[in-house]
Amino acid sequence: MLVVMSCDATEPQVERVCDVIRAMGFRPNAMPGANRTAIGITGNPGPVDPGPIEMLPGVAQCIRVTQPHKLVGREFRTESSSIRVGRAVFGPGHFPIIAGPCAVENEAMIMTVAHFLKEHGVPLMRAGAYKPRTSPYSFQGLGVEGLDILAKARAVTGVGIVTEVMDVESADRIEEVADMLQVGARNMQNFALLRRVGRARKPVLLKRGIAATVEEWLMAAEYILNEGNDQVVLCERGIRSFADQTRNTLDLSVVPVVQRLSHLPIIVDPSHGTGRRDYVPPMAAAALAAGANGLMVEIHPDPNHALSDGAQSMTLGGFDELLAKLRQLATACGLKSDSLS
Amino acid sequence: MLVVMSCDATEPQVERVCDVIRAMGFRPNAMPGANRTAIGITGNPGPVDPGPIEMLPGVAQCIRVTQPHKLVGREFRTESSSIRVGRAVFGPGHFPIIAGPCAVENEAMIMTVAHFLKEHGVPLMRAGAYKPRTSPYSFQGLGVEGLDILAKARAVTGVGIVTEVMDVESADRIEEVADMLQVGARNMQNFALLRRVGRARKPVLLKRGIAATVEEWLMAAEYILNEGNDQVVLCERGIRSFADQTRNTLDLSVVPVVQRLSHLPIIVDPSHGTGRRDYVPPMAAAALAAGANGLMVEIHPDPNHALSDGAQSMTLGGFDELLAKLRQLATACGLKSDSLS
Amino acid sequence: MLVVMSCDATEPQVERVCDVIRAMGFRPNAMPGANRTAIGITGNPGPVDPGPIEMLPGVAQCIRVTQPHKLVGREFRTESSSIRVGRAVFGPGHFPIIAGPCAVENEAMIMTVAHFLKEHGVPLMRAGAYKPRTSPYSFQGLGVEGLDILAKARAVTGVGIVTEVMDVESADRIEEVADMLQVGARNMQNFALLRRVGRARKPVLLKRGIAATVEEWLMAAEYILNEGNDQVVLCERGIRSFADQTRNTLDLSVVPVVQRLSHLPIIVDPSHGTGRRDYVPPMAAAALAAGANGLMVEIHPDPNHALSDGAQSMTLGGFDELLAKLRQLATACGLKSDSLS
Amino acid sequence: MLVVMSCDATEPQVERVCDVIRAMGFRPNAMPGANRTAIGITGNPGPVDPGPIEMLPGVAQCIRVTQPHKLVGREFRTESSSIRVGRAVFGPGHFPIIAGPCAVENEAMIMTVAHFLKEHGVPLMRAGAYKPRTSPYSFQGLGVEGLDILAKARAVTGVGIVTEVMDVESADRIEEVADMLQVGARNMQNFALLRRVGRARKPVLLKRGIAATVEEWLMAAEYILNEGNDQVVLCERGIRSFADQTRNTLDLSVVPVVQRLSHLPIIVDPSHGTGRRDYVPPMAAAALAAGANGLMVEIHPDPNHALSDGAQSMTLGGFDELLAKLRQLATACGLKSDSLS
Repeated sequence: MLVVMSCDATEPQVERVCDVIRAMGFRPNAMPGANRTAIGITGNPGPVDPGPIEMLPGVAQCIRVTQPHKLVGREFRTESSSIRVGRAVFGPGHFPIIAGPCAVENEAMIMTVAHFLKEHGVPLMRAGAYKPRTSPYSFQGLGVEGLDILAKARAVTGVGIVTEVMDVESADRIEEVADMLQVGARNMQNFALLRRVGRARKPVLLKRGIAATVEEWLMAAEYILNEGNDQVVLCERGIRSFADQTRNTLDLSVVPVVQRLSHLPIIVDPSHGTGRRDYVPPMAAAALAAGANGLMVEIHPDPNHALSDGAQSMTLGGFDELLAKLRQLATACGLKSDSLS
Repeated sequence: MLVVMSCDATEPQVERVCDVIRAMGFRPNAMPGANRTAIGITGNPGPVDPGPIEMLPGVAQCIRVTQPHKLVGREFRTESSSIRVGRAVFGPGHFPIIAGPCAVENEAMIMTVAHFLKEHGVPLMRAGAYKPRTSPYSFQGLGVEGLDILAKARAVTGVGIVTEVMDVESADRIEEVADMLQVGARNMQNFALLRRVGRARKPVLLKRGIAATVEEWLMAAEYILNEGNDQVVLCERGIRSFADQTRNTLDLSVVPVVQRLSHLPIIVDPSHGTGRRDYVPPMAAAALAAGANGLMVEIHPDPNHALSDGAQSMTLGGFDELLAKLRQLATACGLKSDSLS
Repeated sequence: MLVVMSCDATEPQVERVCDVIRAMGFRPNAMPGANRTAIGITGNPGPVDPGPIEMLPGVAQCIRVTQPHKLVGREFRTESSSIRVGRAVFGPGHFPIIAGPCAVENEAMIMTVAHFLKEHGVPLMRAGAYKPRTSPYSFQGLGVEGLDILAKARAVTGVGIVTEVMDVESADRIEEVADMLQVGARNMQNFALLRRVGRARKPVLLKRGIAATVEEWLMAAEYILNEGNDQVVLCERGIRSFADQTRNTLDLSVVPVVQRLSHLPIIVDPSHGTGRRDYVPPMAAAALAAGANGLMVEIHPDPNHALSDGAQSMTLGGFDELLAKLRQLATACGLKSDSLS
Repeated sequence: MLVVMSCDATEPQVERVCDVIRAMGFRPNAMPGANRTAIGITGNPGPVDPGPIEMLPGVAQCIRVTQPHKLVGREFRTESSSIRVGRAVFGPGHFPIIAGPCAVENEAMIMTVAHFLKEHGVPLMRAGAYKPRTSPYSFQGLGVEGLDILAKARAVTGVGIVTEVMDVESADRIEEVADMLQVGARNMQNFALLRRVGRARKPVLLKRGIAATVEEWLMAAEYILNEGNDQVVLCERGIRSFADQTRNTLDLSVVPVVQRLSHLPIIVDPSHGTGRRDYVPPMAAAALAAGANGLMVEIHPDPNHALSDGAQSMTLGGFDELLAKLRQLATACGLKSDSLS
């Protein structure tokens, strides 16, 4: 940490800050400048809490220097991680796709989608048995019945299942069925849940909170790794900004940012990111070109009658066209022809 | 809902939208205009899902008209609610204060604060036994031991306890000790938790999520009321914006907004809202002047050695001065002299 | 416009709103519903000012229906516009690149860049003779001397010039030299300047304001078209959000949004959008894949000694690699091989 | 500035950064730590441009330490400035009010308002002769005719005039008539205009840009002071955030922030800040309680027929009530009884 003193800070004030730093067990390094003095702190094994220093007389600002994350950082692990889920790999050289409806609505629809994915070489299906909804009066998912349907779809088609865990109570049941546990944007800082999936034996898909900085997001992943599960894939799904023509603001530049700071793979969800199915294909292509490690897309056999998120769900036909376009693009981006599987 | 057609929408496109509306069981009211046609939907008992309509050919926009909330709205209950917690009342004509440290650090400190509050006529103490922290390596609270300390402070001084519930697991124990259950900003859309406190026999303090719109916030309260608990107090604690000179951006104008839309009381937390103790007094005064129904403030006997949030905690002496100022202001605002108790 | 009445609005209140609408010369269409009445307004040639209605007793909300823009909208002109600047074309099937330094620093450097662009088939050079700077103490550009250098570079190499107009005073001189007049983000709502470039005989590059909604941006373009100049290209360059790991948040999804609402071409500036040169290549590729109509990139022969924006300027070598990658991608996106020229 | 190296930065990389710093004429102070090295820069008279350093190999981050502003800062001038406009004083111990309509609509209305203000002891009237409007088709103000009306109102009643300068062209004429020149939010970084009012002999009211950080705002004021005019009053008028229930998000906590950093007075405009007249009284009271140095409020004799901003304009009767409430509050806040004049 760097402590910046005001221009008019007195010598005794500087000395007192140094004393407090020493009392914390660290080493102060005063640097007198033309206008003011700055004091660097060294000897600290991790981030220093600015609390005891920030409000001392003469202190203008405390600037944090050390990154707070450990296990998720590039500095802990230089090489990019590759996370295997079923036959899909999230990591360098791959761009697997997770597709499916917002929610499990009934068995027929899930089987239709699962067969479609199998035929089109898409390795993973998304579909929520438990749904977080802003309103208590909206459809909340089929629960256990939905899980049974997903288990059957998996057994029949071999397509892997990605589904959301909303609370610790239902985690055991979901862990039995799912190939990948999704933690949703609203739960990104539900620390009890993060600890629970950190003890799971299944990979975790951690969505970015709607107002989460990259650091907060990486620290949420840190909770999971810290419990022993290092099979974590991050998912950008749009942030909240003033921009009002899309449901959220898809922050694609977070792809190279995360890849610079962390060894974990990052994928993109343009369906929640934009909220309209006609914006999904351009943003899916953009995610691939930006170097994302995969894609999550909402599709539905009959979006106009979907129980939730209909406007952002692609038709199966539209998704088929998108797949063709992405395969073409993947080659131009230097990926292998089977990189989407 | 209002469906706005594009300027170049054809007559058959308008007709198809009307058919879909009828198929949903509602009544379409086409209004042909100079440039375009708009179709009002009536006959719906609650909000209409735009999903099936939004992406039909010729549709430019769907505009929601009906408010999604029911139980929390002024239209459900015209009169402002008054929520009693111990001897404090949150509601018109009152401005009770909740004060205390961020976390229970040890018994001596909690007893010091509790006695101080009792002597100064402050009815409620805040202090977390369980703490949500961005980093898994930060102090996470004393847990059960912290609850025991709070119970003792309450027994000895009579000051009521407001403390945070972070997950369903620990809710039973906390409900035994606390006079008011706090749901933190990060958990505002933890729906399992909202349902649990909705079944509690204690009043709930629901903090606004850092990026929550007023509607999302009121819908979170709706989850609680819908389970049978209508003793809910809302708490504004700052939102996330681009502004970088304060920890969060305290959105004080939400006070009259919430009071217009809902019958629930709303209080303000300027400590989290600003993140610096020297900004707390002006913002506390502003909250009172803006008509808030109470205040939550972080105080600490020795902020420079606090285990968390030291920079935003007031000293006991500073808080004493603030109380005197607020009492003066309360009279000028037409409140009674004991309205802060 | 749609006027939504509160649930408890009385019949006389509804009648009064209808009277006010009639007094404005329009036609009210009351639609009584299960819970409340909504009143549609028809007979209005353009947007209705909600002012006289919004605060009438019993009115809950006024919802605008008519789009405020005219000349820039798809409804005015269905076909996408193609804007020619020198030998470059901004429009469907093309992806021309504008590259160059932030500012004209000296003649040698500008000639180096201009020759480099000519050799690499890049049609347009950017470089500011006048620079808007947050601080009055920062380098403000060479002014007229900078314009002379740009004129010479153009004469020698044939590369077209894109440069910023900051005020009406210097517009005449700049219009003589530039092939395209840039209006910067800070001036997006400088209406005197918009009117001035609306009377120019040169195409205009209109950057999005850092906090501008799509509608405000299109209305700024409307000012230019309304003065008679319909040669306008829009440029997304990042918006302000809470996200703090990039200089701005590049809002790529605005590309399909603008293309749906307007016939004007839209290009992307990933240099200002991200603020770091290593994030520019992934975001440039993403812009192309998202369907943008062109690109603006900052490059510098010696970025570490640039007088401004050094961190986000690519080296000539790095830009060369990016060009090769974009050409490959362009083909996969269905563009012709010379589409970047 | 502080240069933070990555954990794996090599000794030669550290050395190279030090060399670059020396080449810039400054002194590097390397501080080797447990995990990484940080390098403090001293010997610089003002802010250091991170450009040449930020992208060097091994550099993780550059952190700015020195504040970029000079003349507007507390460190330049410790004592709070008091700015006199007519008989009003903006500064400690005062809370003058500027009230009036959005725009000069006609002479009768301006005279009505001016007489009302005189009778109620309000020292300054706001009213725009030139209006910045998002749409080119909205009412743009009466221009010169409007200025003549303002001059007459001033001559007859003695109430001072605050009116907006939108461009350099009309500045001379406005300077003749106005007692205070207003620079609007959209023009906060119109640097030509800032320089022009910096050469004016009249005080300037500088509104905060809708997405301006405090630092950008203070630097805009710095442009004005740097030209020789130190009679600058700042005005908070709401920022853009995701919050959608008010027109803007009034950032009241900026009042103590600005007062800590700068000696310039700061006032608040709750009319633009909220966008609804019923939210103006609570926010006006909050601004006073928060310690603001004055208030700007929109009022109109007949808001329902205002040509602009009707919904946020108070009636004269409503404003009268607000004045009474504010006078009561002012006393409780320790101001003198005539502090609003």
